[in-house]
Amino acid sequence: MSERQVLNKKNMGINSGLPLQASEGGIDELRRDIQRLMDIEAIKQLKHAYFRCVDTANLEELATLFHDEVCVRFKGGGYEWNLDSKQEYVDNIGMAFSKEAIGQHNAHHPEIQIISETEATGIWYLADNMWILNHNALTTGTALYWDRYLKVDGKWLIKDTNYERIYEINRSVDDRPHLSSHYLGVHGADASF
Amino acid sequence: MSERQVLNKKNMGINSGLPLQASEGGIDELRRDIQRLMDIEAIKQLKHAYFRCVDTANLEELATLFHDEVCVRFKGGGYEWNLDSKQEYVDNIGMAFSKEAIGQHNAHHPEIQIISETEATGIWYLADNMWILNHNALTTGTALYWDRYLKVDGKWLIKDTNYERIYEINRSVDDRPHLSSHYLGVHGADASF
Amino acid sequence: MSERQVLNKKNMGINSGLPLQASEGGIDELRRDIQRLMDIEAIKQLKHAYFRCVDTANLEELATLFHDEVCVRFKGGGYEWNLDSKQEYVDNIGMAFSKEAIGQHNAHHPEIQIISETEATGIWYLADNMWILNHNALTTGTALYWDRYLKVDGKWLIKDTNYERIYEINRSVDDRPHLSSHYLGVHGADASF
Repeated sequence: MSERQVLNKKNMGINSGLPLQASEGGIDELRRDIQRLMDIEAIKQLKHAYFRCVDTANLEELATLFHDEVCVRFKGGGYEWNLDSKQEYVDNIGMAFSKEAIGQHNAHHPEIQIISETEATGIWYLADNMWILNHNALTTGTALYWDRYLKVDGKWLIKDTNYERIYEINRSVDDRPHLSSHYLGVHGADASF
Repeated sequence: MSERQVLNKKNMGINSGLPLQASEGGIDELRRDIQRLMDIEAIKQLKHAYFRCVDTANLEELATLFHDEVCVRFKGGGYEWNLDSKQEYVDNIGMAFSKEAIGQHNAHHPEIQIISETEATGIWYLADNMWILNHNALTTGTALYWDRYLKVDGKWLIKDTNYERIYEINRSVDDRPHLSSHYLGVHGADASF
Repeated sequence: MSERQVLNKKNMGINSGLPLQASEGGIDELRRDIQRLMDIEAIKQLKHAYFRCVDTANLEELATLFHDEVCVRFKGGGYEWNLDSKQEYVDNIGMAFSKEAIGQHNAHHPEIQIISETEATGIWYLADNMWILNHNALTTGTALYWDRYLKVDGKWLIKDTNYERIYEINRSVDDRPHLSSHYLGVHGADASF
């Protein structure tokens, strides 16, 4: 842990995007300003759909959210994900979010920067709980995400996604939690590990 | 739990709303685009006020957020709420959020779709903790909400609200938590159950 | 705890801002509407940056987010913060978020009201966990924030920030949590208490 980089904007490669300042121009400039606000909203909804699909193992919709060449770099405390394609990413989520998993991944505090009509960046603050029931394991923590989004054929997609932990706690849980509801227990895939 | 529906957009009855694409038209079309962005913001603030009012038992403001004929369908693990009017909904919240309750209800990841100038839908990802201190009970979990909103006399209201759990854990807590602050303990109603 | 004020908008001093209603005027009125939406987004990003900087002890960026005469009134269960300048606020955060701290501060449910071109208010719903490892202490809770923001030289700043708790639980944790990642343990300051 001693060689961790400082998690500031410079090291995350996040520069200022187009300013949140209405144009002084005419109707076409205002149209672009409106589109920029709509793009910010669309990118938030993209990332929101991502977390909804992950925790419900909705792989069909999930596959519509990534660029074909999505690049994933997640550094957890005890794991890393380094993936370089949509298929790999969807497959890994399908395996991790099995019948033996309970996932709670909530991303807060979006800071979306529009770079151009088709490129944007985002910082998010993740808080998550992940149980792997057959391993009696519970991982809890937070992380900062920094992402790059591309607009392809009129739709925003996740192109690059990175996170590093602020903290991570691993607990061994002796007994299965008393689950009165467990969606993935019904609709997740069979566990493969 | 074995007959649970798949929680995808189709089963929640969520269709694509008006696109987040600026009009190519003139000033009146842009005015409608701006209004659409304002409506999305207003609906988020409506739902945000809802959770603030619930957890502080602010029944007076809460009553201003619902349509008279609000329809509530909440499926928890060990409970269901099926309510069909504003009065029932406010009364039930007043009873549940008593002096013996600590409520923490946070809704994340809004996906608001504007259907028309007066109708919209929303998906939200709830994370909640609810203590009922006199029953030594703590319920923790997450859920997907899907809502319908109507604009009546210029104000967005909650018309239909539904949720189903992603997971729910019920714990019996032997000892009361060591509370150094407890707002509902002062301002909640006396417990009726 | 018995003399706590009711946490409604009136007592928080929150009035309705400019309505989320598109102007019926011409291009200059629409420009102002667009600016208002951009201001709401900029204020959300300001507060989001605040929480990112707090939990990573990023004091350099933090200092860019406050008005020189920021006024802080936080009422926790077992503590109060009453601060009246940027320097005091940054210094206090630097001391609290030391190598012995793990901070998780997530603010939900923004209700931003634009008062004028340079003044706005906001309500937020905080959920937080704060470990002070060398004191074996964990504080968990929620609170309502109410803030005032000013736009100075084109940039929104936090001018006043207040919160009171909905609940707060203090736990003594016998053993240090098993941390597989701890950013502040590397990049926080040495503990001074």
